[in-house]
Amino acid sequence: MKISIIGVGLIGGSMALKLREKNVASFIYGIDNSKQHITEALDLKIIDAEADLEKGIKDSDLIILAIPVDAARKLLPAVLDLVSDRQTVMDAGSTKAGIVGAVKNHPKRSRFVAFHPMWGTENNGPKSAIAESFSGKAGVICNKEESADDALNIVEGIVNALEMHTIYMNAEDHDIHTAYISHISHITSYALANTVLEKEREEETIFQLASSGFSSTVRLAKSHPEMWVPIFKQNKENVLDVLNEHITQLRKFKSALEKENYEYLEELITNANRIREILR
Amino acid sequence: MKISIIGVGLIGGSMALKLREKNVASFIYGIDNSKQHITEALDLKIIDAEADLEKGIKDSDLIILAIPVDAARKLLPAVLDLVSDRQTVMDAGSTKAGIVGAVKNHPKRSRFVAFHPMWGTENNGPKSAIAESFSGKAGVICNKEESADDALNIVEGIVNALEMHTIYMNAEDHDIHTAYISHISHITSYALANTVLEKEREEETIFQLASSGFSSTVRLAKSHPEMWVPIFKQNKENVLDVLNEHITQLRKFKSALEKENYEYLEELITNANRIREILR
Repeated sequence: MKISIIGVGLIGGSMALKLREKNVASFIYGIDNSKQHITEALDLKIIDAEADLEKGIKDSDLIILAIPVDAARKLLPAVLDLVSDRQTVMDAGSTKAGIVGAVKNHPKRSRFVAFHPMWGTENNGPKSAIAESFSGKAGVICNKEESADDALNIVEGIVNALEMHTIYMNAEDHDIHTAYISHISHITSYALANTVLEKEREEETIFQLASSGFSSTVRLAKSHPEMWVPIFKQNKENVLDVLNEHITQLRKFKSALEKENYEYLEELITNANRIREILR
Repeated sequence: MKISIIGVGLIGGSMALKLREKNVASFIYGIDNSKQHITEALDLKIIDAEADLEKGIKDSDLIILAIPVDAARKLLPAVLDLVSDRQTVMDAGSTKAGIVGAVKNHPKRSRFVAFHPMWGTENNGPKSAIAESFSGKAGVICNKEESADDALNIVEGIVNALEMHTIYMNAEDHDIHTAYISHISHITSYALANTVLEKEREEETIFQLASSGFSSTVRLAKSHPEMWVPIFKQNKENVLDVLNEHITQLRKFKSALEKENYEYLEELITNANRIREILR
């Protein structure tokens, strides 16, 4: 099938690579405001040709939005305005209630399938794209009852081709769960980086001493604000809720240390170790 | 040379594997309270023989303490009581002021070299040992002026054989730096795991949705309390200092979200992104 990818960055680029490898995509248009991304995506054979929005949409069976969630929410109604009943539109954003709400009453709502692949890295741009990224991860489809059966089938086929396991969820639940499982990790990682940068003035020492543990905890702090500010904005209430709980949990560690209550400290750590049984 | 390793777990076991691979160790005794660790270490050819403390020390050129930092601090004076001026003792603990203080006036102080390899994982036991663990990481030697030149040379040789780059530091500075760069990461990771376990009652959902980002941020939360409670205890003041700063930094994110001040949020994230230049 012919596919237009709006936003040929990390996610759009990785999807393109895999869908071509699996012979799902016969031709891929890249639509991107960044000339550099288009050039890189052409060089890396991620896309076959550049297109503008109208031309790309007109000539594609499937249109994938893989741009920051605020931009996607703004652009989606205009994309749906342009599609026929034989075309399908999907997104790949990390928040779902906002985008689903934005097209709730759109006459072409049923051509859209709300999607979120549970994968990402701290990098961006087509050069970061990896075909095998999604394999084994969860691919969440939200509010499937609002999509036409044939559109849903096409997106389920895409999720299979990406080698993800499909999970169905309503958009509100999705945004609660991702606040816990993805968004809060980014905030703790940013705050940890800021802590170390604030307190550890000797940057050379950070560089020299940084252990594998620190590097993995702080890895997400490299993620770009263009992507993450809109996510936090769209999922503000849930993220605040989890952030408040996280600060409460950190205060327990603080209290255990201040009071030299090492049995309590052990209890807190033993409780955290339960994550072993869930994430092996 | 003949080496006794006290504590044949993750760190002791990994050192043993590498030192044998490099032909630095001709014979390795394992000294461990856990019969299971000894059996596993023998099966995995991490050690050549089991020994008790007296026999192992008497028969070795180098004695490596690789046990939790509270146990190491307690045991080190007794180990030094048993060594001659031709033997060397090193540790591998994550806090250094405590252990260095414990033997400050010991008549055999100069036979001891305080060491900390900046590597670890969330796993423990000889089965987790990996020969290539330390390669490319920092190996910190503390208070080298308190060690005899020949003992220091031997440990520097060990650090080279482990393929680490040696950094010299005094014990107090070491404990400040590791509070920033290693210990706080563990606390944030534990607290993050507790947050998610507290808020996200549907464990199946955590398992299904967990993204690579979440998994890497929460990985350290699998680390065992037997190792980490003593570290936090010995480095209490520094850890509290960094933890307070970390809570302050998290509150900035909270405030930015509550006030819907997204320029400030972007500023906080952009600042955190500076970690990119330090940790590539």
